[in-house]
Amino acid sequence: MDNIVSLAKRRGFVYPASDIYGGLANSWDYGPMGALMKENIKNEWIKEFVSSRDDMILIDSAIIQNSSVWDASGHLEKFTDPMLECSKCHKRFRADNLIEDVLGIDVDGRTSLEIDTIIQNNNIKCPVCGGKLSEVKNFNLMFNTKLGPVDVSSDTVYLRPETCQGIFTNFDNILKSTRLHLPFGVAQIGKSFRNEITPGNFIFRTLEFEQMEIEYFTKEENADENFNYWLDLFKKWYIKIGIKKENLKEVELTKEQRAHYSKRTVDLYFNFPFGFKELQSFANRADYDLKSHSEKSKKKLHYFDTDTNKNIVPFVIEPSVGLGRLFLALLSNGYREEKVLNDTRVVLSLSSRIAPYQLAIFPLVSKDKDMKDISYNLYTDLRKDYRCSYDDIGAIGKRYRRQDEIGTPLCITVDNDSLKDNAVTVRDRDTMEQKRVSIDNIRDYVDKCFL
Amino acid sequence: MDNIVSLAKRRGFVYPASDIYGGLANSWDYGPMGALMKENIKNEWIKEFVSSRDDMILIDSAIIQNSSVWDASGHLEKFTDPMLECSKCHKRFRADNLIEDVLGIDVDGRTSLEIDTIIQNNNIKCPVCGGKLSEVKNFNLMFNTKLGPVDVSSDTVYLRPETCQGIFTNFDNILKSTRLHLPFGVAQIGKSFRNEITPGNFIFRTLEFEQMEIEYFTKEENADENFNYWLDLFKKWYIKIGIKKENLKEVELTKEQRAHYSKRTVDLYFNFPFGFKELQSFANRADYDLKSHSEKSKKKLHYFDTDTNKNIVPFVIEPSVGLGRLFLALLSNGYREEKVLNDTRVVLSLSSRIAPYQLAIFPLVSKDKDMKDISYNLYTDLRKDYRCSYDDIGAIGKRYRRQDEIGTPLCITVDNDSLKDNAVTVRDRDTMEQKRVSIDNIRDYVDKCFL
Repeated sequence: MDNIVSLAKRRGFVYPASDIYGGLANSWDYGPMGALMKENIKNEWIKEFVSSRDDMILIDSAIIQNSSVWDASGHLEKFTDPMLECSKCHKRFRADNLIEDVLGIDVDGRTSLEIDTIIQNNNIKCPVCGGKLSEVKNFNLMFNTKLGPVDVSSDTVYLRPETCQGIFTNFDNILKSTRLHLPFGVAQIGKSFRNEITPGNFIFRTLEFEQMEIEYFTKEENADENFNYWLDLFKKWYIKIGIKKENLKEVELTKEQRAHYSKRTVDLYFNFPFGFKELQSFANRADYDLKSHSEKSKKKLHYFDTDTNKNIVPFVIEPSVGLGRLFLALLSNGYREEKVLNDTRVVLSLSSRIAPYQLAIFPLVSKDKDMKDISYNLYTDLRKDYRCSYDDIGAIGKRYRRQDEIGTPLCITVDNDSLKDNAVTVRDRDTMEQKRVSIDNIRDYVDKCFL
Repeated sequence: MDNIVSLAKRRGFVYPASDIYGGLANSWDYGPMGALMKENIKNEWIKEFVSSRDDMILIDSAIIQNSSVWDASGHLEKFTDPMLECSKCHKRFRADNLIEDVLGIDVDGRTSLEIDTIIQNNNIKCPVCGGKLSEVKNFNLMFNTKLGPVDVSSDTVYLRPETCQGIFTNFDNILKSTRLHLPFGVAQIGKSFRNEITPGNFIFRTLEFEQMEIEYFTKEENADENFNYWLDLFKKWYIKIGIKKENLKEVELTKEQRAHYSKRTVDLYFNFPFGFKELQSFANRADYDLKSHSEKSKKKLHYFDTDTNKNIVPFVIEPSVGLGRLFLALLSNGYREEKVLNDTRVVLSLSSRIAPYQLAIFPLVSKDKDMKDISYNLYTDLRKDYRCSYDDIGAIGKRYRRQDEIGTPLCITVDNDSLKDNAVTVRDRDTMEQKRVSIDNIRDYVDKCFL
């Protein structure tokens, strides 16, 4: 993991946020390579799940919404962590973490009263100073802020903790402004915020994070079948963008582990450097959300079913993934170190769909005008169809290593012979094999490699 | 303007945020057409200013940063609105707006003391109840929130009011992880937040807004020339994406109107339905930002100039545009109503680069299996290269009008003759002219229309 964090900073994938001011916990900035790679992931996701389909639309709802949204969704009341305060040193701890550390038991889903009882019965004290611990206080994980001039009776508003509510609240607007028929999906990519104080494991858990969300609305009787369909589709997509099959694991949640409204939840785990952890969650949220919002807003969030001529409240399947987590999964999945002669080669094996650059084009000798002209022209030409990097700084070996570390699948070198044979050397990132390819056939060759 | 807002909701461009809960002031959600159009604008911007250039990189920094960033940038102290409170009814007003309303004078740049004097000397009272007004209180426009469990000594953090600071704070990280040489630019697209209580004019001014930001670093001696270069480049780009020349106006700011650090500022105004207002601002921010952050952070944000072997602090040119404003400009620019026979036709003339869909493909008779097969196959094929919509619902005239309203440049209709002549009718949104085009030549024809 340290090696990945170090590579990420060195090569401009991810920097600590506010780095020059000592950083900020669980907050990261994406550098040039990271920003490109993120764009590529988003574009692949949109291509696969939205623009190549007839039954999906994309929306983009605001981060700050009317607080009634979080009342209806249950976040105001229930999106909390149980906290304990030491009466002596006034440090604060998460009750569930503390009990797990001391007793090794999981108190997920227990009430505050039950947790208080566990703390008292087991005589658990402050782990820092040994002082007496307070009763459990529930701490809401939503960031709040004030709208309008402060110190007056201004409105408290919240930064959304999840993107899906913006889909549910717009259900009626979407139906009225489109001609969608069940089953259909609404997709959204956007930032959510959670005031988490737990260790973040690099970009695995961050204060603000981008969700790639799909809410797929279906008739109740087709919900199970659609659940399986989306689970299957995403597993295939992960393989397509380069995730190794053995790095994925499916975990079916029991009724006790699921959110109360969920009829079924499957977590897809990825083999992160710190173990198998949740990459994506698939939930059958039933009609819970639309019903809650209908009730609170007094508007009818219905769908008119022309088969039965009745208004129905659709069920919804939610395959939702965190972009930062997927980003980290792809880095972990692709990172390796290899002994090459007396040296260590760091390679980031990223799929050509995801890698910041697909091709790097070099003149072998940077100062040779002919090589430079040919390679720069080739770069300008290939850039129309591929994401390309041009590099003429330093020895060729160093340039290869640089591209290996940012995951560029193919390097194309123009050398002295290129002037005569109109061909270039194409070097494969993973095998380091080099092939001579005619410039006239370069697109065909590249396309075959990228299949 | 009302017509644009109404079209935007009806056709799924923009919905009021939290619509079912009565909305939230100055907050909007983008629907299916709006989300696609926003993606298109962003992609065009990235293509034009980042990926087709060798001197530009993209980053994506966090919204919540260490508060020292806003100390160094001056936002903690100076990013404020002067507010007055009525001692009787306790309503609050922006002092500058109130003085402009009552006396018709602009107090931008005046101190609180000067504003207090103006209020007293002119005996300005509460416009609601006539009560006595308080002294000026400065209200910071940054949204703040608390990191970590509340009621404890937790850290106040801020939602960024501008994206550019994330570029300046990463200056050193960027230099170290890339091989950039002056002049070079750093681009970023992301949300910023301002606690504005003024009327928003639809999506012109919103609580949260997406900035498309470029900071172009240059040697001091080349700053003026680069300023002109970027101003010119953006004006050309606006024409390219369909903005009419007569809708743009350049306004050179005087020294008094500019931010204190700016050596030169030019605002590009667009002719919105409510008059010419700022679309984009071009500023020469000199070395102010890098110097401020160097001073506060005690890190040296320098660039080593290999020409002179000296460390220098580059100047920076900032051409920054708000995505929501540009979106509104494109809607206003393209919206028109036309009398057609006894009917009114609403047309959204969007460039093929920006329009949610570039092509719409219809079977003339929805129930005809042959027409349906041909049109759906054509749709599936064309979708590989263009953004396409397939529509087989309702009369053909209604389908044309629907596409006119969402700005689709070309509609392609498969009819009875298509079975015989392997050709389709292509209808132009703006002229309503229809041409018969062979399916074999359809890509050539479309490409020529989109030139």
